[in-house]
Amino acid sequence: MISVSRRLAQVPASPIRKLVPLATAAKKQGVRVYHLNIGDPDIETPAAMMKVLQTWKTNPIGYSQSQGEPVFLESLRWYYHKIGFPFIDAQNIQVTSGGSEGISMALFGICSPGDEVIVFEPFYANYNTYAVVNGVTLVPIRTSIKDGFHLPRESVIEKRITKRTRAILFCNPSNPTGTVYTKSEVEALVSIAKKHALFLLSDEVYREYAYDGRKQVSLLSYMEKIPNQAIVLDSMSKRYNVCGVRLGAIVSLNAELMAGVLRIGQGRLSSGIVDQHIAAKLTDVPDSWMKKVHDEFEKRRDVLYEGLRKIPGVIIPKPEGAFYTIVGLPVSDSEKFCAWLLTDFRDHSFRSGQAETVMVAPAGGFYSTPGLGKNEVRIAYVLNQTDLKRCVELLARALTVYNNQ
Amino acid sequence: MISVSRRLAQVPASPIRKLVPLATAAKKQGVRVYHLNIGDPDIETPAAMMKVLQTWKTNPIGYSQSQGEPVFLESLRWYYHKIGFPFIDAQNIQVTSGGSEGISMALFGICSPGDEVIVFEPFYANYNTYAVVNGVTLVPIRTSIKDGFHLPRESVIEKRITKRTRAILFCNPSNPTGTVYTKSEVEALVSIAKKHALFLLSDEVYREYAYDGRKQVSLLSYMEKIPNQAIVLDSMSKRYNVCGVRLGAIVSLNAELMAGVLRIGQGRLSSGIVDQHIAAKLTDVPDSWMKKVHDEFEKRRDVLYEGLRKIPGVIIPKPEGAFYTIVGLPVSDSEKFCAWLLTDFRDHSFRSGQAETVMVAPAGGFYSTPGLGKNEVRIAYVLNQTDLKRCVELLARALTVYNNQ
Repeated sequence: MISVSRRLAQVPASPIRKLVPLATAAKKQGVRVYHLNIGDPDIETPAAMMKVLQTWKTNPIGYSQSQGEPVFLESLRWYYHKIGFPFIDAQNIQVTSGGSEGISMALFGICSPGDEVIVFEPFYANYNTYAVVNGVTLVPIRTSIKDGFHLPRESVIEKRITKRTRAILFCNPSNPTGTVYTKSEVEALVSIAKKHALFLLSDEVYREYAYDGRKQVSLLSYMEKIPNQAIVLDSMSKRYNVCGVRLGAIVSLNAELMAGVLRIGQGRLSSGIVDQHIAAKLTDVPDSWMKKVHDEFEKRRDVLYEGLRKIPGVIIPKPEGAFYTIVGLPVSDSEKFCAWLLTDFRDHSFRSGQAETVMVAPAGGFYSTPGLGKNEVRIAYVLNQTDLKRCVELLARALTVYNNQ
Repeated sequence: MISVSRRLAQVPASPIRKLVPLATAAKKQGVRVYHLNIGDPDIETPAAMMKVLQTWKTNPIGYSQSQGEPVFLESLRWYYHKIGFPFIDAQNIQVTSGGSEGISMALFGICSPGDEVIVFEPFYANYNTYAVVNGVTLVPIRTSIKDGFHLPRESVIEKRITKRTRAILFCNPSNPTGTVYTKSEVEALVSIAKKHALFLLSDEVYREYAYDGRKQVSLLSYMEKIPNQAIVLDSMSKRYNVCGVRLGAIVSLNAELMAGVLRIGQGRLSSGIVDQHIAAKLTDVPDSWMKKVHDEFEKRRDVLYEGLRKIPGVIIPKPEGAFYTIVGLPVSDSEKFCAWLLTDFRDHSFRSGQAETVMVAPAGGFYSTPGLGKNEVRIAYVLNQTDLKRCVELLARALTVYNNQ
């Protein structure tokens, strides 16, 4: 009998993207949909990067190298030195086609099929995809909206370690919760990794986005202490707002791992060469650009937080970093509510008269424990402050209508 | 104990790329290295595609859609209609980040871990990588240099089918052998697939490159007959000489498979948006461009074939398509010979006086049966005719020196 593999059936639909057809249908009806479902900000890509396109000469557009285009590798090395980690050499960096390829390569490289990786729930939904793709079992440790999704005590984490546990995977600052782990939280993870001989996978895509004077504590700070165990997963998408430039990196001092992921990299020949030349210009992005973007997201965070916390029944911890937050809503099934926003709810703009609605992601897909997150949504505050204010208004009205049907 | 996974250790180094460090070292010594090791041709990328870069406006460079950027999907649909397959709709196409992502997604989607896929040896080396990455066992059926690597009789293929066999994977025209399968060969595979309920994976990256008046027989011609079993793997790299634009496609009428690979695609968010806008201009590439490139490769084939077959001890079947050929050499260990070409052999150019050598890929990596291909190399005839003539000369001299040491 011809049928697809069982494991293909287990790959989950993206909670971020699965309602897209409903949004497309709404737009066809002339409805304006505000997208807070996906981290695709409206911030401009730095001019130095845009210029690479407009001044492109190289013809033909040939392969790059499997480890990464040399100029891009050099830019990454420069960046890690600049942020305080001069021990990172080119051989410690593997360029990946998006941060997602890095997650997948790393899980493959450290786990045998059936091995376990501890994650903190809710977590970035696509970890589920790459766990299924690589035959890895995610072991979720629950964190709670009540204390801003911070980590539980060491003993709670250690209790979940089994003979099959190979790693702890965490995202800091966190997508989807906006949590920035404290120095003592990161050090607790380092200490557990040491004690139990585990890998630590730190997804630091949002490294620069920590608010209220916080500074992200990078696993890079501890990399020399646990050189074979520390793996940093990185991405260009959010740092320079080039989400469509599919580039990230695996950074590790583990030579065996780096040699192995390079062999996987050879199998796919190279990442895109145009994208890599764009991203290589990160050396020309002024600090002022980074600061402006950081401050803008902090202000958006304020707009969203101050707006949403006034809505009756809404629970929102103050996001500390990244540009996401998990919000508790007074609904019993957030997936139905999110779909309803796209299919039924319409509010006419006071100014334009246009019918409008807002798209957010049901949070269930950010949990792997069935049933959790059912009354939560993930919101990406990626739109400008005016639009965000309107989104808060739309959500407030939608909840009133929805709960009085 | 901290160690990488066993399966990571099993990922083979690319036979196409693993000698690159030796080539780099030679270049540092001032040696000119002619690259016949990798299919990265010196043909210009079509002007319509280059123009996308120079006229790029969209800012920020945001995500594309997971299935593919709509304009690129539409171009692909247009292309498949143009080449005679009007039943292909957008829903039958999944854009992949390079042909390699397509191979990987397809193997994952149709195989459980430990399942078997029949391939014809020698085969594209990176199939090995994606077999390991997806826990799939490749079952190689040997083909021979003596009859130009054409397929064995149906019964020989059927004998290798077991309860674990899920698919037959073939490349047509073939990288690395240059074989173009005849209509009856393709039909034999379709008939076996039908009889034994197997998937057929046809890698048609070199569809346009068939010589001496041959026309490639696409699996698309049989797709409606075995709609749930036929999967075509495609790539933009070679057709439009945009190897650095990492884009390919999975084409299938199997709705369950297409829904599943889309979910995997959601996990990696999207392929590069700049690359997709470049490739979308395939609609503006004139037929005359394709014909010119086709004819140029046919001439290069002639130069290589006529040159190499005159070298004593060299065995070369006349390549029928693609731009590769497997060549038998009078050496006992082609990997050592390929390395020696880079480390030791130098021939001074008559014109420039510069030391020169040539890089080819040892063929062992294109086999999975240990020991096979040990006296063979894969040659990619991707350089212009003048350079190719010089490469033939270099190989002839190198063999003389090597065998008289």
